[in-house]
Amino acid sequence: MTNFDQDAADAAQVRQDNLTKPQGSLGRLEELAIFMAGWRGTSRPVMDHAQAIVFAGNHGVVARGITPFPAAVTEAMVRNFRNDGAAINQICTVAGAELQVVALDLDRPTADFTAGPAMTEAEVRQAMAIGADAVDPAADVVMLGEMGIGNSTVAAALAASVLGGRAEDWVGPGTGAQGAMLQAKIAAVAEGLALHVPRTAVETLAAFGGREQAAICGAILKARDLRIPVMLDGFICCAAAAVLTRDDPQALDHCMIGHVSAEPGHRQLIAALGKQPILSLDMRLGEGSGAGVALLVLRAALACHNGMATFAEAGIG
Amino acid sequence: MTNFDQDAADAAQVRQDNLTKPQGSLGRLEELAIFMAGWRGTSRPVMDHAQAIVFAGNHGVVARGITPFPAAVTEAMVRNFRNDGAAINQICTVAGAELQVVALDLDRPTADFTAGPAMTEAEVRQAMAIGADAVDPAADVVMLGEMGIGNSTVAAALAASVLGGRAEDWVGPGTGAQGAMLQAKIAAVAEGLALHVPRTAVETLAAFGGREQAAICGAILKARDLRIPVMLDGFICCAAAAVLTRDDPQALDHCMIGHVSAEPGHRQLIAALGKQPILSLDMRLGEGSGAGVALLVLRAALACHNGMATFAEAGIG
Repeated sequence: MTNFDQDAADAAQVRQDNLTKPQGSLGRLEELAIFMAGWRGTSRPVMDHAQAIVFAGNHGVVARGITPFPAAVTEAMVRNFRNDGAAINQICTVAGAELQVVALDLDRPTADFTAGPAMTEAEVRQAMAIGADAVDPAADVVMLGEMGIGNSTVAAALAASVLGGRAEDWVGPGTGAQGAMLQAKIAAVAEGLALHVPRTAVETLAAFGGREQAAICGAILKARDLRIPVMLDGFICCAAAAVLTRDDPQALDHCMIGHVSAEPGHRQLIAALGKQPILSLDMRLGEGSGAGVALLVLRAALACHNGMATFAEAGIG
Repeated sequence: MTNFDQDAADAAQVRQDNLTKPQGSLGRLEELAIFMAGWRGTSRPVMDHAQAIVFAGNHGVVARGITPFPAAVTEAMVRNFRNDGAAINQICTVAGAELQVVALDLDRPTADFTAGPAMTEAEVRQAMAIGADAVDPAADVVMLGEMGIGNSTVAAALAASVLGGRAEDWVGPGTGAQGAMLQAKIAAVAEGLALHVPRTAVETLAAFGGREQAAICGAILKARDLRIPVMLDGFICCAAAAVLTRDDPQALDHCMIGHVSAEPGHRQLIAALGKQPILSLDMRLGEGSGAGVALLVLRAALACHNGMATFAEAGIG
């Protein structure tokens, strides 16, 4: 597993300290530029090629009545992505990111995790390989998102399994579960947690699913090998990523959290990962939409880092 | 004074509710699109022409030893803006905003407000007119920023005069005042507050200055007449804007706050204005840098609003 290049980061810090501004005054824009420098292994990181990948999957747990939308909406939204009609399409255009949509066996939902394992370990590894293969080695940053009716239930189960806590600590409304539906969601997660006690990342994904979560994990690991920093999205994306910390607490060191979503569990999930979100815009759509907006902040950070004059160049001081 | 077009905003809300996403799931991106719709008077607001204006001025109160930088840095930074070397230049390029830099009599600082009025009312009106004239009637949004060594001291005095509280409630480090310098800053503001008890916006600007603050006020009023929403920047920009609420509590209704800065007084200033910042990135540079990054969020919001498919168009639901 590749590691942070401290020399490159230090050189980027020196550059930041000589740019025409009070030291530190660009706040998180400076941090982001230095983070990119360390992971890209260069004092002058760029964002010439931003890749956005949205993974989509379906989930057997929808049979438990845990979501207001039918599973068919997953495929309909994938068509919408391909027809340039979704939020993530517009955001990627503004952010200058190339969007790739990867639908994983939508006609073959994972099994209901309250009745048994969602997937076999072989299926997990296959979905992880699809995620890894989706990462473009030429990318300077990879933004990950997801689509899958029912997957905020899966995310709550994954977060509780990895980080502890009760089902109700992690279950939220998702796309709009309320009242009895929210209770059904909590019950499903609680039953799943009682049924499965996985130890590794692969076991955890096999227990609860789903394919898009496994693909996210595969993409994160592949990006690390390629020294490509990752921009994570909301609760569902981050819960998938958190699974990797089961095998290696440092597995997400190359990941940024694009935003904290309105889904209640997201804030505590981010805190448990020891991260700080870039944005807090009350978004709760998924698809990578919050991470996509955060790419804009990253773009501004790198533009300042590379384009500003130093005090010496400007003849000041 | 023009007002919010509720019909246009309502039509924009209807559109948002029919786009391919759970209602409300884009959070503040939806709010921003609807805000723009109401102020632009159209259900489909655009951002074809974003204007960024940075006003620069110098301040007699620097004689009180309230800042680590010499006043000459104001002019040096104006040169840096014109040579494309500053943070705001890079951010405007990324945000697709046209940057205009307006230097106001840099060789003629305002008077030290601890000894008397900073300016005459005629000088205030002249600077306000310069600010008003700078606004491009063809702009879809105007972003305002400032540069002026010593102007966080002026900002603290303006905020305290308009909103109440003691000098130490509003004075912060600015570009880096610490220890004895920070105490000198507090003392200067306290003396100014004891000396001046202005009632109107013009009287307030005359009392404490400065020219860039008056220009910001002029630009905000002109933008309102032109139905152009305004993106405000940090503590100094917002403190200038707050002066207008002395004449009309609704004067800033067409203004968005781009970010909450690291300058301690900014958060309470924003709260006093009844606003919510778009970003919180620990920035404290001024120049319009935070507001410029917020323009990127606004651009994403409008792209979603105008570019997404409705459920009917996507054949969903």
